[in-house]
Amino acid sequence: MKDKFCVIMAGGAGSRFWPFSRNERPKQFLDFLGTGSSLLQMTYNRFRKIIPAENIYIVSNRIYRDLIMEQLPELPEGNVLLEPTRRNTAPCIAYAMNRIAKVSENANVVVAPSDHLILKEDEFLDTIQQGFDFVSENDALLTLGIKPSRPETGYGYIQISEGDGLLRKVRTFTEKPNQEMAKIFMDSGEFLWNSGIFLWSIPAIRKSFETLLPEMANKFKQGTEVYGTPREQAFIDEIYPLCHNISIDYGIMEKAPNVYVLCSDFGWSDLGTWGSLYDLSPKDENRNVSNRCQAMFYDSKDNIVVMSEDKLAVVQGLEGYIVAESGNALLICKKEEEQHIRQMVNDITVKYDGKYN
Amino acid sequence: MKDKFCVIMAGGAGSRFWPFSRNERPKQFLDFLGTGSSLLQMTYNRFRKIIPAENIYIVSNRIYRDLIMEQLPELPEGNVLLEPTRRNTAPCIAYAMNRIAKVSENANVVVAPSDHLILKEDEFLDTIQQGFDFVSENDALLTLGIKPSRPETGYGYIQISEGDGLLRKVRTFTEKPNQEMAKIFMDSGEFLWNSGIFLWSIPAIRKSFETLLPEMANKFKQGTEVYGTPREQAFIDEIYPLCHNISIDYGIMEKAPNVYVLCSDFGWSDLGTWGSLYDLSPKDENRNVSNRCQAMFYDSKDNIVVMSEDKLAVVQGLEGYIVAESGNALLICKKEEEQHIRQMVNDITVKYDGKYN
Repeated sequence: MKDKFCVIMAGGAGSRFWPFSRNERPKQFLDFLGTGSSLLQMTYNRFRKIIPAENIYIVSNRIYRDLIMEQLPELPEGNVLLEPTRRNTAPCIAYAMNRIAKVSENANVVVAPSDHLILKEDEFLDTIQQGFDFVSENDALLTLGIKPSRPETGYGYIQISEGDGLLRKVRTFTEKPNQEMAKIFMDSGEFLWNSGIFLWSIPAIRKSFETLLPEMANKFKQGTEVYGTPREQAFIDEIYPLCHNISIDYGIMEKAPNVYVLCSDFGWSDLGTWGSLYDLSPKDENRNVSNRCQAMFYDSKDNIVVMSEDKLAVVQGLEGYIVAESGNALLICKKEEEQHIRQMVNDITVKYDGKYN
Repeated sequence: MKDKFCVIMAGGAGSRFWPFSRNERPKQFLDFLGTGSSLLQMTYNRFRKIIPAENIYIVSNRIYRDLIMEQLPELPEGNVLLEPTRRNTAPCIAYAMNRIAKVSENANVVVAPSDHLILKEDEFLDTIQQGFDFVSENDALLTLGIKPSRPETGYGYIQISEGDGLLRKVRTFTEKPNQEMAKIFMDSGEFLWNSGIFLWSIPAIRKSFETLLPEMANKFKQGTEVYGTPREQAFIDEIYPLCHNISIDYGIMEKAPNVYVLCSDFGWSDLGTWGSLYDLSPKDENRNVSNRCQAMFYDSKDNIVVMSEDKLAVVQGLEGYIVAESGNALLICKKEEEQHIRQMVNDITVKYDGKYN
């Protein structure tokens, strides 16, 4: 199918994984699981099996251009779309959709984050194919929902409408629930994890932008003449900073009337927290995880230790901690307090003027 | 005084300070306090003020020869005495005494560890001078006792005899006391910390060895002809491994009838534990210590963090821990469990075949 396109969003700063993830090389560019490929490379290679390289676009911050070209040498240089500044996912997607429209006005597009983990690739690709089939025939915005395997409080949920089959109308998107609510969600069978992977046709998403984010849609429309020309970057650099900082979820998906979900199960994790990496990792008899490095544990349990391959950690008397060391920085933090890591990184940025970012 | 000599014992493995202290560069060779000098250099420079370089001897393991020559370039090469293997302090001292006897039969000698901290140098040198005066005129073994400033359970104590003045006969040496006993010791005014710094004349210590460790004395006596000649090292390499592994305290000081103590107060610490380094170090408002590195603490107190100068540690939710990182290893251990570090280092040695020692 020549009109299948893919947009991989790779502009995140990954500060929740500091110090392993750094400003100059965030999470998506790291060989996070020690497999020999970065998360971005794994994401690209996955889509590459069903989509030709020239139809795959990466959107990222301009500072990561060289990293992307280095990690994806096969990718045409013009398929790297560079944001001059961070503005969340709605402007990022608006840019990519306008650019693809210039190439193929009726393209069907899958949009995916670059830093998620997918364990069952065959199931994933089948799901994407089903999604393409659906959006190519319907004026619909489709999101992939994941059957919950545990009452996770770190994810947003999607409530589905009643009916049969795997394709359902979305009833509501929900915020991250508390533990009790997450359990109710899971037991009900009506709620799926929101994966943040979307499919739609160019006409369908264009109409949604024009209706729900008209100001933004208008900004990008002004560039119709320049997309794909040498003037594109200057145009983007000018209008991008003027866009509202807003997510596609909040700006479009939660408000559009034609949003559907495809119920999926392909071993997905957003790898959004140290906790999720801990959950996914093999554990010793005291449920300690050591990622990449050597580690010896004494009177310790439920910890995750991540250091580089050549290092040894000796840990005594810790329970439920993250120990992460990379380059010039070490973090020790209770797993249950990891939502504060982002703030700590802010503190560090201010105090040390970016030296340890 | 030409007959004043000094022996600095620098053969320790320093494994209690792993990973900061490593097999190939133990504690005494490290700039432990970030002053720009190693503990050995500080010790040498202190004695150098009252003793000429040619009268200062360093006894250490053969593997540290180059380190010593590098750190003490002024020292005559022949003044580095090399043990082929570790045999505790009695053989080390027997060797040094025999060697010095060859140069000066009636020398007065101070013997000191290389890795102690002394804050009040003037008081220390005055004390050493008083000690030399005493041992040059008396057939006595003198040890320096330190007026306790706290009920420390990490040190051995010396009970002094009744009397006036700072020079007293030793009544008993004691093992490390428990907390309650340490408090009684301190309150009594009769107990001093055992510093492990000794003074004596060659004739006095020779007599003690001949009486209390005759087998060892005899071994070293056989080399009288070779000390100071090119055959010395081969002789030492042959007899040293045959010596009993025994400390000078246990072998001589606790048994000799003529042991005296000079009551001293020169800001001494044996720097024997992370806890002692913690106690000595400046602290923030939550009693956290960061040594060399940068550190940021959240919900944390009573910790000591030691990493290299260019590093940052971010510590959340820790209380009373040691965090020490150097080279290819990181240690996290409760301060109160640090007596087990030595065992952990043994475990590491076995498991990783010395890779992290």
